[in-house]
Amino acid sequence: MPNIGNLVQFEYYQQIFAPRPESDRLPVSFEDWEARAREKLPSAQYWYIAGAAGAGDTMRANRAAFDRWRIIPRMLRDVTERDLSITLFGRHLPFPVLLAPIGVQSIIHPDGECGAARAAASLGVPFIASTAATHPMEDIAQACGEVPHWYQLYWSKDPELTASFVRRAERAGYSAIVVTLDTPMMAWRERDLEHTYLPFLLGEGIGNYLTDPVFRSRLAKPPEQDKASAIALWTQVFGNPGLTWADLDWLRRHTRLPILLKGILHPDDALEALRHGVDGLIVSNHGGRQVDGAVAALDALVDIVRVVRGRVPVLMDSGIRRGADIVKALALGASAVLVGRPYAYGLAVAGEAGVRQVLRNLLADLDLTLALSGRRSVAELDPSVLALAP
Amino acid sequence: MPNIGNLVQFEYYQQIFAPRPESDRLPVSFEDWEARAREKLPSAQYWYIAGAAGAGDTMRANRAAFDRWRIIPRMLRDVTERDLSITLFGRHLPFPVLLAPIGVQSIIHPDGECGAARAAASLGVPFIASTAATHPMEDIAQACGEVPHWYQLYWSKDPELTASFVRRAERAGYSAIVVTLDTPMMAWRERDLEHTYLPFLLGEGIGNYLTDPVFRSRLAKPPEQDKASAIALWTQVFGNPGLTWADLDWLRRHTRLPILLKGILHPDDALEALRHGVDGLIVSNHGGRQVDGAVAALDALVDIVRVVRGRVPVLMDSGIRRGADIVKALALGASAVLVGRPYAYGLAVAGEAGVRQVLRNLLADLDLTLALSGRRSVAELDPSVLALAP
Amino acid sequence: MPNIGNLVQFEYYQQIFAPRPESDRLPVSFEDWEARAREKLPSAQYWYIAGAAGAGDTMRANRAAFDRWRIIPRMLRDVTERDLSITLFGRHLPFPVLLAPIGVQSIIHPDGECGAARAAASLGVPFIASTAATHPMEDIAQACGEVPHWYQLYWSKDPELTASFVRRAERAGYSAIVVTLDTPMMAWRERDLEHTYLPFLLGEGIGNYLTDPVFRSRLAKPPEQDKASAIALWTQVFGNPGLTWADLDWLRRHTRLPILLKGILHPDDALEALRHGVDGLIVSNHGGRQVDGAVAALDALVDIVRVVRGRVPVLMDSGIRRGADIVKALALGASAVLVGRPYAYGLAVAGEAGVRQVLRNLLADLDLTLALSGRRSVAELDPSVLALAP
Amino acid sequence: MPNIGNLVQFEYYQQIFAPRPESDRLPVSFEDWEARAREKLPSAQYWYIAGAAGAGDTMRANRAAFDRWRIIPRMLRDVTERDLSITLFGRHLPFPVLLAPIGVQSIIHPDGECGAARAAASLGVPFIASTAATHPMEDIAQACGEVPHWYQLYWSKDPELTASFVRRAERAGYSAIVVTLDTPMMAWRERDLEHTYLPFLLGEGIGNYLTDPVFRSRLAKPPEQDKASAIALWTQVFGNPGLTWADLDWLRRHTRLPILLKGILHPDDALEALRHGVDGLIVSNHGGRQVDGAVAALDALVDIVRVVRGRVPVLMDSGIRRGADIVKALALGASAVLVGRPYAYGLAVAGEAGVRQVLRNLLADLDLTLALSGRRSVAELDPSVLALAP
Repeated sequence: MPNIGNLVQFEYYQQIFAPRPESDRLPVSFEDWEARAREKLPSAQYWYIAGAAGAGDTMRANRAAFDRWRIIPRMLRDVTERDLSITLFGRHLPFPVLLAPIGVQSIIHPDGECGAARAAASLGVPFIASTAATHPMEDIAQACGEVPHWYQLYWSKDPELTASFVRRAERAGYSAIVVTLDTPMMAWRERDLEHTYLPFLLGEGIGNYLTDPVFRSRLAKPPEQDKASAIALWTQVFGNPGLTWADLDWLRRHTRLPILLKGILHPDDALEALRHGVDGLIVSNHGGRQVDGAVAALDALVDIVRVVRGRVPVLMDSGIRRGADIVKALALGASAVLVGRPYAYGLAVAGEAGVRQVLRNLLADLDLTLALSGRRSVAELDPSVLALAP
Repeated sequence: MPNIGNLVQFEYYQQIFAPRPESDRLPVSFEDWEARAREKLPSAQYWYIAGAAGAGDTMRANRAAFDRWRIIPRMLRDVTERDLSITLFGRHLPFPVLLAPIGVQSIIHPDGECGAARAAASLGVPFIASTAATHPMEDIAQACGEVPHWYQLYWSKDPELTASFVRRAERAGYSAIVVTLDTPMMAWRERDLEHTYLPFLLGEGIGNYLTDPVFRSRLAKPPEQDKASAIALWTQVFGNPGLTWADLDWLRRHTRLPILLKGILHPDDALEALRHGVDGLIVSNHGGRQVDGAVAALDALVDIVRVVRGRVPVLMDSGIRRGADIVKALALGASAVLVGRPYAYGLAVAGEAGVRQVLRNLLADLDLTLALSGRRSVAELDPSVLALAP
Repeated sequence: MPNIGNLVQFEYYQQIFAPRPESDRLPVSFEDWEARAREKLPSAQYWYIAGAAGAGDTMRANRAAFDRWRIIPRMLRDVTERDLSITLFGRHLPFPVLLAPIGVQSIIHPDGECGAARAAASLGVPFIASTAATHPMEDIAQACGEVPHWYQLYWSKDPELTASFVRRAERAGYSAIVVTLDTPMMAWRERDLEHTYLPFLLGEGIGNYLTDPVFRSRLAKPPEQDKASAIALWTQVFGNPGLTWADLDWLRRHTRLPILLKGILHPDDALEALRHGVDGLIVSNHGGRQVDGAVAALDALVDIVRVVRGRVPVLMDSGIRRGADIVKALALGASAVLVGRPYAYGLAVAGEAGVRQVLRNLLADLDLTLALSGRRSVAELDPSVLALAP
Repeated sequence: MPNIGNLVQFEYYQQIFAPRPESDRLPVSFEDWEARAREKLPSAQYWYIAGAAGAGDTMRANRAAFDRWRIIPRMLRDVTERDLSITLFGRHLPFPVLLAPIGVQSIIHPDGECGAARAAASLGVPFIASTAATHPMEDIAQACGEVPHWYQLYWSKDPELTASFVRRAERAGYSAIVVTLDTPMMAWRERDLEHTYLPFLLGEGIGNYLTDPVFRSRLAKPPEQDKASAIALWTQVFGNPGLTWADLDWLRRHTRLPILLKGILHPDDALEALRHGVDGLIVSNHGGRQVDGAVAALDALVDIVRVVRGRVPVLMDSGIRRGADIVKALALGASAVLVGRPYAYGLAVAGEAGVRQVLRNLLADLDLTLALSGRRSVAELDPSVLALAP
């Protein structure tokens, strides 16, 4: 089987002999995907994806943290065959990459989450379905097929609703629950306020609620007849700023699936999570979308990996743009990474096909960067791969 | 009572259902307010506000100092209710924010200081009235109503005039005297020299003088009849570069109000201030408007908080633009912050309503950043909130 | 004999009295040569030269590393006569500079490698002929005349072909073999993928293969009759990701020429190379074209020089743009430097004459920078010349 | 006597009542002077002044070094009267500022050096006349009147010519000899090569030679009759790359004037200078015009002041643009600073009046920055004024 890096390169260069029509050409670089998405989307939708909290300071810090680490490639190590696969919660994954949960994907393309999930599944990449997805979680699960998929939980103020979500996720075949901690409420996102754009209030991204038996039972009339009341209820139950560590024990009792906490940035919170028996951590600042001025995710990763000492997998997101970023995150101790905006731009530009292309490119880039760094597998990515820039 | 962050967000998003006319839309980000102010104001007036001393080096340093500190948010801490209030000099304030003294506000909008003070008061935010205000201090005090308001003193060469200002401030109900130390004379402000624009010489911003009985007693004719002579006298008495620490004792004898010193940047000056019995300090470089090349205010804050050891409140200004900046300043030991240019731009763009909007946005941003950082009150903001960027 | 710096300056200023026609004027600064090349070349060709792997991060890091070191010039040291010469592998070279191997030079100018080699030889500068050159190595060797020239080897999967290349290089008079280690496969070069431009698939840059008896013996029909099959074979045999250190011993047995390894970035690889008896090292990240995020070449040089301790010459490339860069590299322990993009831009703009002009300028700049730093010879360039910027 | 800062401010603001015609307005900021000079001068002339060696790296480093130091202003120190004066070589100077030697000033304005010298003298500021001045040193000396003026020596290969220059300088009333060490030859100045512009070859800036009896005695015909031969001779005798420390003793024997060495950047060269009995040092990298990549002058100053330990005055130039820069240089131990490009731009824009305005502005800025930093005199500028930026 050819390595994905060589395969994707080969396919690109095959176009020398069989050129695609100009209209069919997709961007290559992250910056070009972003620029194309900006052209294609209305301003409000574009900035809902591209924007960040406050001044965007954290979003920039995320990137700067990657730039401080330099790869020191090794030579003459026979990198003919590379193995990018990892094992997470007993499942073999072909790549150390998952698609991060992003809500309301249909505002950027009709293919929405199901399209993105199909694209991911076609490459064996797990999709993490957001509670705020446009499509109900059951449809997304189906789109993922046999490829592992995880369910991201926005923990509702209504415990029965939360329990219902978890129950449905289990039944739909999701193999892990990702609890997002950093969004008990929306942050101060200046671009969205400027556009007065909150898609949920327009009835977008609340499909999981509208189809939920508990949620429906709270409504006087079914949402098909009175959407406004359904939306109003949604605003009341969506998040839960009152959650504390003790609530995790409640969740633990409600599911046998692995539980991961997403949004951990402080080592002490990582240790607290271990004490509560969580199965994994996702170091993340939500792509800079929640706390403006927050620590860069990669910097937090280093501190958290140090205290976790391998007891549970530590994943990370926020700032992954290219193969070298993944190499750096894994070398610093991440078990896998989640990718967000890159695939959202792919979706915006070309729907499912766009997501697939973005992902194939990223994996090819990762494969080649790994090989050219003189490593053959994810296991060979340890801190010796890196040096801090002077 | 809803938290201000959620409330302001709610009001923004209500516009989805009841959109405001385009002409009625106000900016959200600091940069957009600034840009709109620039469009709206004549160049000389805009630069009088936006400009700084010399090359603007200190103004940039003020911002860079904030960027060096990163917030490390904590999770699962029940942030349903936040309390942003503080107590300063025995008064309860709903927010750790005051409006910095800015002179001649009528050059940017007819609402002037009274408009800005009303906007602040509507949110319970103290207004600090500048000696160089357009409106007499008595009118501003009235605009503040029951909300605490402080009087900023430019200490005149004429001691009787200074005493008169302090006396009037006490009578008008100001509850603290803020002595600005860093402006015994105007700095080298290149933009203003370029525009040859000094509003005071045009009779702007000297309202407190023209209405003062001592000042009037120094004039041969009342200023209504001979404004030129009044302005000439103003140039002679405005500031006092001859002041020394000993003069503080004189002021101490002339008022029972708390005295704060504004413009302290060196720890030794902070200690000297304590020896002279001042009641509070405001660490400030006047927004970069006085000494080009001066230390960043946030960096000075750290050194000064260390030596003051809680004996008096230490406030700070110079560079506060967003909620995260306030979180950082408070975490590093500031008791409260003063906001300057942001509200001046609000005033320029939309008068009183603009100031109110700028302030509400800033407080909402602060509230949400606090909550999403896992803190419920100002008391929970201590150095553990932060890490230096690597 | 005049020093080259004074000579070139003199010739420039002679134009005051005998001005060249505008159309005849060549750029001076690196940035201007690059800009002119960009105007002149089609986009695909330009970016094939100017582009880098991934985000171009390594290419920028290469430059930033030079900026961190500052020269401390010494005064009053009689710098009337400078000697820029060095001795490498027993050969006297007039300058510590070689032309780096660059493939497919005919895509940028019909003069191609032979033109570049003639330009270099006219100044006594060694040319390193790339395996991927357009012109067969025998022609390039002839263009170099008596000036030393080295052969750069892309080690083929086909050992007989590799052996044939080495044999031909020896016969053609090359005096060293440079094995490029960092390119067992093409990196993820986004600009080339965007343009779907890989010149080799168009039959460019495989002249050394098409003329090779071993390569030809592998083909059913001679390439003159069936180029497509020849290209297809090329794609199969070009690189060899399976190489290991042990393979060096095979090469050692196949040639008595000095062997240099190009692409060494880790001190441990440098030591391993010494254990395998190589004769020299070239610290290089291929101008940022292979591993995005890789360590800056100059930073790697420092670490490698430290462990090699003078046992073999350590050359470097990746980022050399001006005389000061060469001074810094030599002061940090490089025996000589290789120059890449600068001469490629010269070739693009004006063919052989452009390469010559770029090179003369660079050497003049080096000579003057050396003299004005108070040094008379390459031997006087040691770490005392430099200080790290604070 | 009013302090210059207040005086200049006053004069600017007087224009509110007596506005100057637009055409009469001069720039204020360094950047605006530079921009105006660029508009006014032909490209070759502009870049002869504004350009630097190589990539301009040193010129940027000069500025960055100032930005690393922050002033910590002190309050309440009675700064009513400031004294900017210093004593150098027994002469009282009203300001710690001199005009740096700049050659060929008539290429930028017909007022040339005499105009610049008159402007400086009108403020009591010493002018340092360049050997490469357009006007003969005797005329410049006359323009300086009673104000001290120094002679800058480009040490010729012809010792009798050098001796003649020194003799003439003494007779003309110059009170110090400044030997520029860093220019035994012209550096690689890319902009000048691009324009093929070397004013000396056009007969500019060699007035001191053409009027010199020794120089004339070397010519077959007087330069009035055969300028080409005079220029040719100039190119042969101008600089002297063969100078060594021993030659200083020769100079010492030829003059009783204080000798300063300009261009010292290494502490060991400073110590060597002391051993040879020089009377002062000028730390300088020639404004970045000689060694691209050289250490920033301010960084070199710190190291040199440390070893000189007050035994001779240490002056500095290279990067001084505003008052804060002078405060920083003096606080770090400089006895005085030289200003170059700023006054050249003044000359380009408005001749003598432009130089005077640039200088008055700079001194006003210095005075105000000193006062607002809480210092009353140059003597109060010591390292306690500064902190390194974190």
